[in-house]
Amino acid sequence: MEHDPLSSTDSKIDNAELALLDRYWRAANYLSVGQIYLLDNPLLREPLQPQHIKPRLLGHWGTTPGLNFIYAHLNRIIRARALDIIYVCGPGHGGPGIVANTYLEGTYSEVYPDISEDIDGMRKLFRQFSFPGGIPSHVAPETPGSIHEGGELGYALVHAYGAAFDNPDLIVACVVGDGEAETGPLAASWQSNKFLNPARDGAVLPILHLNGYKIANPTVLGRDSDEDLRHLFLGYGYEPYFVEGSDPTEMHRTMATTFDTVFDRIRTIQQEARSGKGQSGMPRWPMIVMRSPKGWTGPKEVDGLKVEGFWRSHQVPVSNCRGDDGHRRILEDWMRSYRPDELFDASGRLQPELRALTATGNKRMSASPHANGGLLRKELVVPSIRDYEVKMISRGEPEVQATAVLGNYLRDTLKLNDATANFRIFGPDETASNRLGAVFEVTDRVWMEEIKPYDVGLGSDGRVMEVLSEHLCQGWLEGYLLTGRHGFFSCYEAFIHIVDSMFNQHAKWLKVTRDLEWRKPISSLNYLLTSHVWRQDHNGFSHQDPGFVDHVVNKKADIVRVYFPPDANTLLWVGDHCLRTYDRVNVIVAGKQPEPLWLSMDEAIRHCEAGAGAWEWAGNDDNVLSPDVVMACAGDVPTLETMAAVDLLRELVPDLRIRVVNVVDLMTLQSKEQHPHGFTDEEFDRLFTVDRPVIFAFHGYPYLIHRLTYRRTNHRNIHVRGYIEEGTTTTPFDMTVLNELDRFHLAIEAIERIPGLKDKAAAALDKLRAKLVEHHAYVREYGEDMPEVRDWKWKR
Amino acid sequence: MEHDPLSSTDSKIDNAELALLDRYWRAANYLSVGQIYLLDNPLLREPLQPQHIKPRLLGHWGTTPGLNFIYAHLNRIIRARALDIIYVCGPGHGGPGIVANTYLEGTYSEVYPDISEDIDGMRKLFRQFSFPGGIPSHVAPETPGSIHEGGELGYALVHAYGAAFDNPDLIVACVVGDGEAETGPLAASWQSNKFLNPARDGAVLPILHLNGYKIANPTVLGRDSDEDLRHLFLGYGYEPYFVEGSDPTEMHRTMATTFDTVFDRIRTIQQEARSGKGQSGMPRWPMIVMRSPKGWTGPKEVDGLKVEGFWRSHQVPVSNCRGDDGHRRILEDWMRSYRPDELFDASGRLQPELRALTATGNKRMSASPHANGGLLRKELVVPSIRDYEVKMISRGEPEVQATAVLGNYLRDTLKLNDATANFRIFGPDETASNRLGAVFEVTDRVWMEEIKPYDVGLGSDGRVMEVLSEHLCQGWLEGYLLTGRHGFFSCYEAFIHIVDSMFNQHAKWLKVTRDLEWRKPISSLNYLLTSHVWRQDHNGFSHQDPGFVDHVVNKKADIVRVYFPPDANTLLWVGDHCLRTYDRVNVIVAGKQPEPLWLSMDEAIRHCEAGAGAWEWAGNDDNVLSPDVVMACAGDVPTLETMAAVDLLRELVPDLRIRVVNVVDLMTLQSKEQHPHGFTDEEFDRLFTVDRPVIFAFHGYPYLIHRLTYRRTNHRNIHVRGYIEEGTTTTPFDMTVLNELDRFHLAIEAIERIPGLKDKAAAALDKLRAKLVEHHAYVREYGEDMPEVRDWKWKR
Repeated sequence: MEHDPLSSTDSKIDNAELALLDRYWRAANYLSVGQIYLLDNPLLREPLQPQHIKPRLLGHWGTTPGLNFIYAHLNRIIRARALDIIYVCGPGHGGPGIVANTYLEGTYSEVYPDISEDIDGMRKLFRQFSFPGGIPSHVAPETPGSIHEGGELGYALVHAYGAAFDNPDLIVACVVGDGEAETGPLAASWQSNKFLNPARDGAVLPILHLNGYKIANPTVLGRDSDEDLRHLFLGYGYEPYFVEGSDPTEMHRTMATTFDTVFDRIRTIQQEARSGKGQSGMPRWPMIVMRSPKGWTGPKEVDGLKVEGFWRSHQVPVSNCRGDDGHRRILEDWMRSYRPDELFDASGRLQPELRALTATGNKRMSASPHANGGLLRKELVVPSIRDYEVKMISRGEPEVQATAVLGNYLRDTLKLNDATANFRIFGPDETASNRLGAVFEVTDRVWMEEIKPYDVGLGSDGRVMEVLSEHLCQGWLEGYLLTGRHGFFSCYEAFIHIVDSMFNQHAKWLKVTRDLEWRKPISSLNYLLTSHVWRQDHNGFSHQDPGFVDHVVNKKADIVRVYFPPDANTLLWVGDHCLRTYDRVNVIVAGKQPEPLWLSMDEAIRHCEAGAGAWEWAGNDDNVLSPDVVMACAGDVPTLETMAAVDLLRELVPDLRIRVVNVVDLMTLQSKEQHPHGFTDEEFDRLFTVDRPVIFAFHGYPYLIHRLTYRRTNHRNIHVRGYIEEGTTTTPFDMTVLNELDRFHLAIEAIERIPGLKDKAAAALDKLRAKLVEHHAYVREYGEDMPEVRDWKWKR
Repeated sequence: MEHDPLSSTDSKIDNAELALLDRYWRAANYLSVGQIYLLDNPLLREPLQPQHIKPRLLGHWGTTPGLNFIYAHLNRIIRARALDIIYVCGPGHGGPGIVANTYLEGTYSEVYPDISEDIDGMRKLFRQFSFPGGIPSHVAPETPGSIHEGGELGYALVHAYGAAFDNPDLIVACVVGDGEAETGPLAASWQSNKFLNPARDGAVLPILHLNGYKIANPTVLGRDSDEDLRHLFLGYGYEPYFVEGSDPTEMHRTMATTFDTVFDRIRTIQQEARSGKGQSGMPRWPMIVMRSPKGWTGPKEVDGLKVEGFWRSHQVPVSNCRGDDGHRRILEDWMRSYRPDELFDASGRLQPELRALTATGNKRMSASPHANGGLLRKELVVPSIRDYEVKMISRGEPEVQATAVLGNYLRDTLKLNDATANFRIFGPDETASNRLGAVFEVTDRVWMEEIKPYDVGLGSDGRVMEVLSEHLCQGWLEGYLLTGRHGFFSCYEAFIHIVDSMFNQHAKWLKVTRDLEWRKPISSLNYLLTSHVWRQDHNGFSHQDPGFVDHVVNKKADIVRVYFPPDANTLLWVGDHCLRTYDRVNVIVAGKQPEPLWLSMDEAIRHCEAGAGAWEWAGNDDNVLSPDVVMACAGDVPTLETMAAVDLLRELVPDLRIRVVNVVDLMTLQSKEQHPHGFTDEEFDRLFTVDRPVIFAFHGYPYLIHRLTYRRTNHRNIHVRGYIEEGTTTTPFDMTVLNELDRFHLAIEAIERIPGLKDKAAAALDKLRAKLVEHHAYVREYGEDMPEVRDWKWKR
């Protein structure tokens, strides 16, 4: 199973080629060190002086030489086989290395002409790194060829798989650092091979790069024996190959022969799958375990302490090179050990025989259009939402499962884009549970392991990706979008917090790319949050948290959108709209249970386009400027309770003038200056009045509404009810009562907040309070909601 | 390596014992089904009628019989060997099963006397399950013997390890479902064996329960071959044993013999480690792979569709048993198949020969004090913070690394509690990076894999737990706290979002336990968030997110506290305070870089006890009721910038009357009604005035301050500056400028917000704006901050 470097294809690799390759590697290492340390004197054509060195040394050396080594060998394979490969760099700290390679390939200077391929360009290349006004220290959106921010660790492999799906001619080389390999998301990502179909998808080549140390500790996998590692990766379903050592010459030979074997193996797997020969089912893909010293080729010791092959080389292996002559000498010796004069010509340009080692044109990993997915993105073909309209019988009728209606739309979207193969649906085992099951009429869940005769909806060609890991769903989708495709992620609302941090990284990526002209827009990341806080009948308190949207709205306004469609037709509009946007994160919150239909499709379109509006048919303020009260709502359950509260109020206090306002697009509440969707103060005041009480029933934590509206004229009169962390396994209506968002509490508060009404409407208040007592007794006696609540319908 | 059930200790297990055990299992299964379905007629002593059945059928059957099976066999082992075992139930959906067992053991009736051990108690037991006013459907805080909420999946194994640390006599049996096993956190948790020391810690016995299906899909591990699974768990460092089948008789025998072998193995490992015999280093702990059908012993088919052994048995395998006579018959036949009359006596009590199979007293897993950790909790012994005071030379002097000072305090806390062995420090490879390195003077990082001669600070007895997984740190700490110990978690601020969702689950657990008299208080979960947004010099934008506190404050006010100590002495107070609290989540945000010392220890104590207060020595309003402006701040960097702004203002506009307010305890900003630490409106108004402009420099996203203060009298005049998602790898001061939180922006805004001052102070404004231009040019030219910024000191 293991690779024997002495057998196989050694003969193909001659020493001269490897010697050249080593020189290329030295060039990449040289440029990496230069970026971390130098302000000037980039080719050391004069002795190194304090003023040549950056005042603040920022960056990470430790992982960099290994990354450069792999990059150089991938170039060799690309040239030899004319492959399309992209490089996903898990140890994103190795920014100087990846930037160095993109510069050596010429791409960097094409993208940033100011950083030219000469000594002046090299000076700028060095200076800009981790420098104010320059580029960040990690692999970042600014780095050509990257789809993977080197920020938070854990997502390299899942991004790699996302990129490979539906890209049959692409190979994604993915370097996983041994630090990153300790994270949960990465540990789960290895299982992605169960979801990759060699016939229609590309390949992922994971390279586990063990340099043995994190910031200040050995790594778990770095200290594992080869035997344990072999077991582990066999257990994950891979065929592991080992490349281990510290002697560059031997390592070059081993890596070259291993790459030859491994890429042969990938080709064979794909050919067998695509020709229908060979075994069906999941192949055993190769992966590589590469052990090399941390800070390889850097200073062995500094101040008597071990540096190379140890965690002290993690960031800047020798510090204070401005002030400390001895340290500066170590730096200079180190940089000169790469013999820059052999690598670059008089003008500072890479020697032609080394440049010849890189790939050319779009075959360069740094210039692959797959890594700038917007270049390849095709518009999603979507059907007309009118074809899915739920016809209204009367206001509130019929009751429909909004997500089931959206499921029909998604089914047909899958069909329309089937030939293009650029749309997938993701979810943690919840597509059917979330009532999107219609999609299974036209596709399956992807499944590469055994399929039993009684299984339903499984297939190797499925376009629905389900795994019980929100991390994998999110990461696959990100990789898929970043390479120019489209996707849709449905998730239990509470558990989307599992990927809070991944959302952060993706939103930050989008924010930066928006300022990079050369990065083309990619499709938005669309979440449907369902099985939400108000309908956790099977589960309870642990499954109740509507706070993801709080988290989302902290990101740049340009990037985020949050929608609360109150019914099926509005959900259709919102879903369709989101799928057609780009460079955003759209969050849609909608329930999966039968709920009243409030708007015809024409009305839904008008309402959603406005983002929020008064429902004149529900209120009775006859467009008077100042109603007695505004009953506002956002979210399907709050809308239902608000409508029922309005019904009660109109019955109990008939002369009350009520305006009903529904908010679909949460961002309308913010001011125009804060968010492009924000209402002007005039628009807001027209809707919410300047002085009347507003009873706002909100799907999530009530504070979010305050946060969004605190600058509005009438903010002092906005009284928000939402989820206040009360809940258990109980009935749907009892959940609203526990959190005081139910129709009775809403009606009571309206009466209490309207100046002077409390005493006049004392009988109504008594009646409403009695209803709460009645509910409490009923639900505990019968285990279901009172018939008058269950069967309530809007009749006006 | 694998277990052969035909060898070993079969002879010890007689058929009669196994037959009894099977009866006990049937009793547990019977009670589980009863909870899901029945309102009445608990022992089926009359034919099942519609009104006996709950109107809403909520709960999860699929995993339950397997959980009951394991429970029964663990009871056998406990009795035979007098072991202390707790049961961590990963498939927490199996709530009815765990509740059933705690009832069979008698614990449930001891804790909840109303649920007595007779037919009336059984009726209540059934009725309360997933019923309004009753108990939730999952294993929950309400379940005796549980330390693990059956909510979000992924944390069972990490909780189990947390419980086992420093509990040498405890064995934690941990059932991991094959759904859960797909999650990232669980996949990483297997590596916890690298951190468990058999000499001083207890043991964890992982039981991977493969029932093959999730909600609507097969599971990845469930479809893996035994060979792959064996590789996988060997690769993780375990010795896997397989228990597989569906025939109860055979399965009982296999499980009993396997348990005998496995518990022998655990004893041997511990004896060898504790006697100093045997190999040092990491032992190969046993683990069990148990394959049994989903919904085992339930209906085989319903309406012609496969149910047992398939995902259709996940929740309620046969629905609508009230309305559908055929379904009701299936249910009745199913329940009668357990032959309840053989299990319970006439009064409804478990037959004595079956009761004799359970453990007794505190040996019952449901009555283990370890699972109600507050019972065992000893107060942490802490030194006096005065011993660590940083002596003030003058205001702002010296500059100290606050976290380093706290490190000294933590070091001595470790020493003081060394004998009790009940305090650990957790962090993702960042304890030293976060400047808490002093702790390594007295302890090591736990490390059970090989230790090389040049390694530093590693040892099998260490009390610092580092792994590059925030999930593992958080989960270990939770398990450790829930079993009655103390801990401290330091983390990069941005990446604590990785555990947003785990925080949610823990905060919800605490909220529920607060209402359960029998659950005793546990120590608080303490976070130190450092390497924060304002000092990401090595990293940049991807590492900048101060929003964890936004997430935290959505939870119940009783549970959460958020502190922003501005200097070393205040951090000492806060750290010490948090370590002495219980049943809370405390979040401390403090930087690790050298920063000015503002308060003596006496002052720090007074200031922190108040939570927020005016710094009279910094302002010049002489306690006049209304200064011209309030310069408020929360967070170390914002405090520094505010002080510098005040300095500038006092120089440029000398007749300005300025009040400086610093907020340590963020919760003081909320109203008293919302949070116990909240200031009354009077207190708040006294500090922040009722009508003067407040320029509030905040560490995090500015909206949080608005959200907390929107009901305050002077809210309209509170102008908050904070992190607005602008950043990259740059200088510390440039970060504040990019987000307009720097001294110049603060001073400018103060002048602009004070009515009438703008024109009078035009020269000052010009000067301040010029400084921003100067900064911009300087930092881009020299790559460091202007000397006047770098060297600024408070001189007043």
